[in-house]
Amino acid sequence: MTTAAINPKIGTTMKSLVYHGPGQKAWEDKPYPSIKESGDAIVRITTSTICGTDLHIMKGDVPTVTDGRILGHEGIGVVEQVGSGVTEFHVGDKVIISCVTACTKCDFCRKGMYSHCRTGGWILGNTIDGTQAEYVRIPHADGSLYHFPDGGDEEALVMLSDILPTGFECGVLNGQVKPGDTVAIVGAGPVGLAVLLTAQFYSPAAIYVIDLDDNRLAVAKKFGATTVINSSDGKAVERVLELTGGAGVDVAIEAVGIGATFDICQEIVAAGGRLANVGVHGKPVMLHLEKLWSHNIALTTRLVDTVTLPMLLKIVLSGKLQPSKLATHRFALNDIQKAYEIFGNAAKESALKVILTNK
Amino acid sequence: MTTAAINPKIGTTMKSLVYHGPGQKAWEDKPYPSIKESGDAIVRITTSTICGTDLHIMKGDVPTVTDGRILGHEGIGVVEQVGSGVTEFHVGDKVIISCVTACTKCDFCRKGMYSHCRTGGWILGNTIDGTQAEYVRIPHADGSLYHFPDGGDEEALVMLSDILPTGFECGVLNGQVKPGDTVAIVGAGPVGLAVLLTAQFYSPAAIYVIDLDDNRLAVAKKFGATTVINSSDGKAVERVLELTGGAGVDVAIEAVGIGATFDICQEIVAAGGRLANVGVHGKPVMLHLEKLWSHNIALTTRLVDTVTLPMLLKIVLSGKLQPSKLATHRFALNDIQKAYEIFGNAAKESALKVILTNK
Amino acid sequence: MTTAAINPKIGTTMKSLVYHGPGQKAWEDKPYPSIKESGDAIVRITTSTICGTDLHIMKGDVPTVTDGRILGHEGIGVVEQVGSGVTEFHVGDKVIISCVTACTKCDFCRKGMYSHCRTGGWILGNTIDGTQAEYVRIPHADGSLYHFPDGGDEEALVMLSDILPTGFECGVLNGQVKPGDTVAIVGAGPVGLAVLLTAQFYSPAAIYVIDLDDNRLAVAKKFGATTVINSSDGKAVERVLELTGGAGVDVAIEAVGIGATFDICQEIVAAGGRLANVGVHGKPVMLHLEKLWSHNIALTTRLVDTVTLPMLLKIVLSGKLQPSKLATHRFALNDIQKAYEIFGNAAKESALKVILTNK
Amino acid sequence: MTTAAINPKIGTTMKSLVYHGPGQKAWEDKPYPSIKESGDAIVRITTSTICGTDLHIMKGDVPTVTDGRILGHEGIGVVEQVGSGVTEFHVGDKVIISCVTACTKCDFCRKGMYSHCRTGGWILGNTIDGTQAEYVRIPHADGSLYHFPDGGDEEALVMLSDILPTGFECGVLNGQVKPGDTVAIVGAGPVGLAVLLTAQFYSPAAIYVIDLDDNRLAVAKKFGATTVINSSDGKAVERVLELTGGAGVDVAIEAVGIGATFDICQEIVAAGGRLANVGVHGKPVMLHLEKLWSHNIALTTRLVDTVTLPMLLKIVLSGKLQPSKLATHRFALNDIQKAYEIFGNAAKESALKVILTNK
Repeated sequence: MTTAAINPKIGTTMKSLVYHGPGQKAWEDKPYPSIKESGDAIVRITTSTICGTDLHIMKGDVPTVTDGRILGHEGIGVVEQVGSGVTEFHVGDKVIISCVTACTKCDFCRKGMYSHCRTGGWILGNTIDGTQAEYVRIPHADGSLYHFPDGGDEEALVMLSDILPTGFECGVLNGQVKPGDTVAIVGAGPVGLAVLLTAQFYSPAAIYVIDLDDNRLAVAKKFGATTVINSSDGKAVERVLELTGGAGVDVAIEAVGIGATFDICQEIVAAGGRLANVGVHGKPVMLHLEKLWSHNIALTTRLVDTVTLPMLLKIVLSGKLQPSKLATHRFALNDIQKAYEIFGNAAKESALKVILTNK
Repeated sequence: MTTAAINPKIGTTMKSLVYHGPGQKAWEDKPYPSIKESGDAIVRITTSTICGTDLHIMKGDVPTVTDGRILGHEGIGVVEQVGSGVTEFHVGDKVIISCVTACTKCDFCRKGMYSHCRTGGWILGNTIDGTQAEYVRIPHADGSLYHFPDGGDEEALVMLSDILPTGFECGVLNGQVKPGDTVAIVGAGPVGLAVLLTAQFYSPAAIYVIDLDDNRLAVAKKFGATTVINSSDGKAVERVLELTGGAGVDVAIEAVGIGATFDICQEIVAAGGRLANVGVHGKPVMLHLEKLWSHNIALTTRLVDTVTLPMLLKIVLSGKLQPSKLATHRFALNDIQKAYEIFGNAAKESALKVILTNK
Repeated sequence: MTTAAINPKIGTTMKSLVYHGPGQKAWEDKPYPSIKESGDAIVRITTSTICGTDLHIMKGDVPTVTDGRILGHEGIGVVEQVGSGVTEFHVGDKVIISCVTACTKCDFCRKGMYSHCRTGGWILGNTIDGTQAEYVRIPHADGSLYHFPDGGDEEALVMLSDILPTGFECGVLNGQVKPGDTVAIVGAGPVGLAVLLTAQFYSPAAIYVIDLDDNRLAVAKKFGATTVINSSDGKAVERVLELTGGAGVDVAIEAVGIGATFDICQEIVAAGGRLANVGVHGKPVMLHLEKLWSHNIALTTRLVDTVTLPMLLKIVLSGKLQPSKLATHRFALNDIQKAYEIFGNAAKESALKVILTNK
Repeated sequence: MTTAAINPKIGTTMKSLVYHGPGQKAWEDKPYPSIKESGDAIVRITTSTICGTDLHIMKGDVPTVTDGRILGHEGIGVVEQVGSGVTEFHVGDKVIISCVTACTKCDFCRKGMYSHCRTGGWILGNTIDGTQAEYVRIPHADGSLYHFPDGGDEEALVMLSDILPTGFECGVLNGQVKPGDTVAIVGAGPVGLAVLLTAQFYSPAAIYVIDLDDNRLAVAKKFGATTVINSSDGKAVERVLELTGGAGVDVAIEAVGIGATFDICQEIVAAGGRLANVGVHGKPVMLHLEKLWSHNIALTTRLVDTVTLPMLLKIVLSGKLQPSKLATHRFALNDIQKAYEIFGNAAKESALKVILTNK
């Protein structure tokens, strides 16, 4: 059922970053992956990166990740082998790997909700081995890989694996950002900045970015924020209401994942506005329905589907978006432990995304 | 500026139901209302009704309602007098009164959010005198009155003042009910039943109605619920998940206004589904973002705008909706105190809407 | 790559209706079909039917259909064999065959435009052999077959292969039929009636059906038309404008495919309305932009995608739609030549859909 | 009913450009306008401009314009007097005049179709006297005027009267331009350029502009076109198909109003695409339904509603749009005859919009 017989690497080993419980990980040998289903492809990783979610995993916050799992769900690479059912990719094709695996056939995939694919979704570096390795097995390859364009920049396009679609789909599309809108983004980490970059596709009149860290706010300003607000004085809500003549913002986007930032959002969203949640929350929040019941708002949640990956790719290629500016640090893939250290101290290190290269 | 001079009732008195603080109201004389702005109309009430919100007011829950206020925001009547700026209505026109006053000119009105009209919104029986009276002044008459159709049924059409648009706009439209959907309505009071009746405009495959009262559930069944669930055993969530093979419902509609019913909604809404809040909440609720952040849901709130009143009128006239079946009790307007008693014990009295007639 | 080895029918023959040029067709022996790609399935037909498009083919109007082609693109059947890439269907599964073949992976399929699938679309009974046969090969089986529900009625559900999705997607969805709308359907043949049945999912206030044939109009009346108009006196436009107080209809749906009926539609569509073309046109039409440029209309075209097949199935199963009433005549599959005769004289024979059974 | 008594200009005369039949117009004395309805305002014009439609009128192409009519439907000015029903504007307010008059109360206005207002629409300089005059009466002032922002630029903001909303609403919104789209604009006159400027609000990946005039194409290039195509060789369609790999464009926008340019649009629109007509057509066009019936396209028409004027104003104020670059020539209002001459030879004179100032 596969072309495995002709792949001399079968049975050899590769290097990979392996999770061994909270706080424990190692750059170690694992077997070279093999095709398991007819839709699988094996991809040699050329560029990868680290996600905030990987840090959550390392803290033990994601119970589906168990000892022995290879981490990582972002990457660029080259197809080494394909199963018999793969029709869209061939050995040697350079590809962008989506963080979300999509069969394209199930009811959820049919409506563009790849995140909830019956046999996919976010599984890479979670319930199956991931991309922080020399090689990775990609199930449902036809639905989960995208052709890397000739002359493309790996550093820029690896941002299409997760962070740009996340900011765009969960923040901008769900928030229905429209020309002339006033938008507030709460949180200026990499995901908040991805929201900021992609919100500008729709020409809002104003974008306020709120964070506790002045360095990040300076980056936000450079990336197109019209106003930045340091919320460490507890007066962000007051400031936004002042800026909007008391009305609040058309779109409030939560890009942190805690109660305090969610609270800011629900206090600043205008009547008729949208509150788009992007952050990953670990706890319930208090929703002030006693006020909001009559405010005609929509609050949305979303796990990224990466359905907009092809559209984002077009915009990057058109030159209207330069995602490489999210890359602040570069390492060889086998220095990944050092990269985690830097990324784990992102604020202090002024780090956004760290690029891992395997050449 | 007005035609007041020719109206012999100016300076006389009328009967009306007046609020005198929590638990206190009286059917008493008040001055016949007069035109104050060029857009005003004076309407003689022929049919009115009582809303659940009126009961909230009587408990003292609505602080904007102060001693001396005439209650009521629903009604049918006949125009007695119009200000100089009124162009769409003339003395003698029979009209449906919207519970929401709309100038049609401000930014909110321009986008169909009459509920947030800069000089209107829900003001009748709230911040200005209302419709539980022989006469009422209607500001912004051109935007707030609708022509009563020849041969129309007052008992049916008074439901267009508030309850049907509320169920339809806040529940069905916000919930984006679509053909083939599975819908759950939590709460089978008058508003929940209005949701039930109008949800059927979109041919959902299944409508579950959940309530604590078997009588109301029996009515729901008669009004088109495909399954009714008595939640007094605390197993409504379990039952809905069972009925949907564990998936939950496409649309969950909250029509009560308390934490417990909101909880049912957030536990039964499917990934990719909508949670439309219709209930009036007095307290915050706990929102389980730690689970819902990745469920791709939309949660909406809305104070009714009554923008759909003309469309609902067309459907009533086409015979596809019989709102008169919401009317269970009838009184003369001057028996309104008795009507409040019945309506205040709605469950026990099997009361839905009580009709008040002033002939 | 296939399970062919175990299928004893390989190498045998089957009966099928074969096109031999305009006006020429024969019920004759053809080889039992075999799996060609890993995504293929072989289906034994149990129920099929004839489409108006088949009549067009027989006239020689569809040049892509060449001598030797097995006709037919609708059907119910049982899976006999599957390729190695098929994951959603197994031997013995009873299935509904979509008239449109969808790979689900290409850019068009990803946006729900299966009709323009890069390696599919309408190919059955067109560029590859079809369903008016004892057996048929279905490419991209996972995207092109749907599970037949337990206890389903074949006669009803074969309408999901083409005619119901066509009426619903091209007419009702594209026409954006909404509650309270006034809708006109021009053409009361099977497709026009499919529009009529599915338009009612959205509770329009009025549906006018226009045709030249009184029998068909009588059926339309029975199927829910609120007014039927025989246009043989050339006064259909006049009559519709009269009925709508001069305004025209919110939605005009063309279900014939000629200039005369298109003209009626463009003359009766209201300012702000939608003109949804369903008919298959062989010639250009004159579009009166000199009038319509300022009428704020949308004119849509669509080859059915059958993306709504699962939703339509839910509604049929809920009992809200009885498509079996479109079936007027029944034949054994091997009497298909007789069935074509009846269907070719549909108006005279009062025929809608003819059912072909292979038991 | 009015404040007329205190306006000393009542009974005096003013200068205005008066139409006297095809080819005939004069800068002549007319009575100072007076309030006729309670919703009227009188505005002193400070800035006006000339529209392509005015040229059509001068050719006698617009039969609703009769001898004696003051021309013009665009302008900035200062309120001199208001009727008793006007609530949003006061004497001395500086205003932008919409080319479309909106009562805001009728059914069309309620759904944002101001162009079809029952007692308004495009009437200025058409069925009532217009803005190419020292003073103008504006009916339904509350719905038809917009507050001029402090510090605004009259030359820029007069583009909000008509041309920018026209390009944006009829071209960009109706064409549903989306991030990453490929858009073609056929016609690089002022309206085509307004489409070009406002299409960029949505970050399309490519915008092709097609025209016969190299000067206009040079302007288009400067205004953001990614590719310009001179169609004088008859190969524009070929070129667009080449650029799009044979697929055609997502959005084709017709901004001329003749059959030849409409033909280009229908030949280059991709399957699943939108064809938005902006041009004013004097004759029917041939629509190739024999090809397009199966292409899943939407073709739209629209007379501008100017509902987006407030949003466009926000974007201008945010600095994301500089409409003043459409202004190429400047005249005193009383030199309007000279201005018409220049504008009538726009291509030769490299004229886009001519600004008329009355100081």
